[in-house]
Amino acid sequence: MRIFTFEKAGKPCIGLLRTPDAQEYIDLEIAGYEHCHDMVALLGQADWKDSLDAILGQKPANAIKPMAGIKFMPLVPNPGKIICVGLNYADHAKEGGHEIPEHPSFFLRVNSSQLAHQQPMIVPKASAKLDYEAELAVVIGQKARHLTLDNALDCVAGYSCYNDGSVRDYQRKGTQWTLGKNFDDTGSFGPWLVTKDELPPGGDGLRIQARLNGQVLQDGNTSNFLFDVKTVLKIVSECMTLEPGDVIITGTPAGVGYARKPPIFMKAGDICEIEIEKIGVLTNTMANE
Amino acid sequence: MRIFTFEKAGKPCIGLLRTPDAQEYIDLEIAGYEHCHDMVALLGQADWKDSLDAILGQKPANAIKPMAGIKFMPLVPNPGKIICVGLNYADHAKEGGHEIPEHPSFFLRVNSSQLAHQQPMIVPKASAKLDYEAELAVVIGQKARHLTLDNALDCVAGYSCYNDGSVRDYQRKGTQWTLGKNFDDTGSFGPWLVTKDELPPGGDGLRIQARLNGQVLQDGNTSNFLFDVKTVLKIVSECMTLEPGDVIITGTPAGVGYARKPPIFMKAGDICEIEIEKIGVLTNTMANE
Repeated sequence: MRIFTFEKAGKPCIGLLRTPDAQEYIDLEIAGYEHCHDMVALLGQADWKDSLDAILGQKPANAIKPMAGIKFMPLVPNPGKIICVGLNYADHAKEGGHEIPEHPSFFLRVNSSQLAHQQPMIVPKASAKLDYEAELAVVIGQKARHLTLDNALDCVAGYSCYNDGSVRDYQRKGTQWTLGKNFDDTGSFGPWLVTKDELPPGGDGLRIQARLNGQVLQDGNTSNFLFDVKTVLKIVSECMTLEPGDVIITGTPAGVGYARKPPIFMKAGDICEIEIEKIGVLTNTMANE
Repeated sequence: MRIFTFEKAGKPCIGLLRTPDAQEYIDLEIAGYEHCHDMVALLGQADWKDSLDAILGQKPANAIKPMAGIKFMPLVPNPGKIICVGLNYADHAKEGGHEIPEHPSFFLRVNSSQLAHQQPMIVPKASAKLDYEAELAVVIGQKARHLTLDNALDCVAGYSCYNDGSVRDYQRKGTQWTLGKNFDDTGSFGPWLVTKDELPPGGDGLRIQARLNGQVLQDGNTSNFLFDVKTVLKIVSECMTLEPGDVIITGTPAGVGYARKPPIFMKAGDICEIEIEKIGVLTNTMANE
């Protein structure tokens, strides 16, 4: 099952893809589903997947709409937290001159840094060093604390694509990466959530790519995580409660722009695509602030 | 003017202190103020201070309540972001073995890490290294981007106290401080917001203390910031849009527990007080998870 958030009359609304070819969706508001305006609230319902399966089965003709022309919003516009794993692929750690870490480094993104599939990603006035990072996003579906490796994946609702857009000079001002990871409209999230039953456990073994103007610049596989999804969930939940709608983005493989010789940074008009096998393609065109 | 968030019938409600001695408050729900359940929504009203001034003047007898027995909530329970400045006092940077930084280091807290005045701060199962940090909190009252040093303070609604509770061993796992700064129930925020008209510009020149079981362990002054409030606001707003209800905590002076010889960490039953001159005292008792 695939669900997404789109803008309807200026507000978020949730759509349910009818088929993987993404030609039609069911508008959950028209279909009468109560929790249709807030992905966090939807994921907080224990029976949301059964309810949506029932709606898919009913094929409510008046709620079936063509995908063409919809305006996506970030998959979860208002998550309680966006937890990001740094240096989670050995080849990416090496290209940045880092040692292979013994413990993951986590940073956070704020909601105001997010944007949606097909919306412009913003090259800020303050810097010309905006870089792409293709990442697998994990969306939490159940409140969880003190997970074990055995039960960690139970709290996952599904997976999506994330472009962890990074302003490299600001990322390295001070010791913490926060500023460079939180410019407005640099964290692209979507297009949709694919429920975990349609993917390998932990999103393992998925090819992940970033393409800039059609050129493949990152080409990795989630089987190469230094810390896999269940390990990340276990560590994070030692510290904090995970809640429905929370997002964990899992780090990026080698091939980012700043580590290239010469470096590549994104400029207005560039088209960046993040593709993850069995999930989809997340596309953004760059625009100047 | 002083306002705070308290729990009423299981939901947030906003109270307005009648007098600085904190004996009585006006329940803004009973007083009929529309935006009485959400500090972010209240601060988003351009005229909130005028409206509350009018209510103070009306002295609505049925809405005046004794402070005794109220259950505080975090001053802003659901801010859009909590931006934290690391190493913002020279003496604290030195005690941790850091160089005096040329640029501030920012990290973020998530909302699930917050707790309120008089609620238990939690010593986690995962670590015995919970430390206090007395900090001045800046609460944003207006949407802002690209602030200058001249206009930066215009976006501030007021100031409060924050105890940036830090789990030191987790803070130093990996290169980023995120985990150690985001354990559940470790970031205490309150008791109330003091509007900026009652304080020096930028909260400058205020004595700031942390006391543990009555012993003064931090005793600094906000005049010793390496990066003052307007400078911090200017830098942050180069990157991201500040929104009403956003919180910036401004770093801690020397005297934290981990840098002492021998180190001091907080344990169940300890009482930690953060006092900032002209604002108030934020008190929490430690409890085991």
